[in-house]
Amino acid sequence: MNTVHIMEFQEMMKSLYFHRDSERGIKGTYEWLVDEVGELGEALEKKDIDAAEKEFADVIAWLASLANITGIDLERAAVNKYSGKCPKCQKSPCQCTF
Amino acid sequence: MNTVHIMEFQEMMKSLYFHRDSERGIKGTYEWLVDEVGELGEALEKKDIDAAEKEFADVIAWLASLANITGIDLERAAVNKYSGKCPKCQKSPCQCTF
Repeated sequence: MNTVHIMEFQEMMKSLYFHRDSERGIKGTYEWLVDEVGELGEALEKKDIDAAEKEFADVIAWLASLANITGIDLERAAVNKYSGKCPKCQKSPCQCTF
Repeated sequence: MNTVHIMEFQEMMKSLYFHRDSERGIKGTYEWLVDEVGELGEALEKKDIDAAEKEFADVIAWLASLANITGIDLERAAVNKYSGKCPKCQKSPCQCTF
């Protein structure tokens, strides 16, 4: 698999981890997401790009896991809000002034 | 756009926000990501699914923005680590015992 839709990735996480994620529950899975975001921050602070790459993967994986047990379609959520122009100023590129 | 590759979504974020994200820098953009993850947590705690859906969109958007200014391909990172089986136990579904 060289290229993947957000939806396909979320489905892959469902196949791999739904049984564990649903047992752990939303709060616990959210805490894992927070931990992974923390690890991403540490890798970026150390300017360790290889480590950061792995942490980016983990963050999107845990986000997808959390979306699965929350019953949310991550791709639809992303596309509904970000459909080619900034949701606030309606322009591309964004021209918000704040 | 009804369905989107992770890469396309990251490119859309680049078109929309790269000029702002690169000016703000990695640290500031990471802090925005952390804030959005916090907002997601609040929405989930209130069991507000509509709000949570918007926050899921914001988290993946800020993750893509951060990947853009870090020079990381989010889709490649995700697919390299999660290619159909658990990276730890190599099985689908995951059968890790911990």
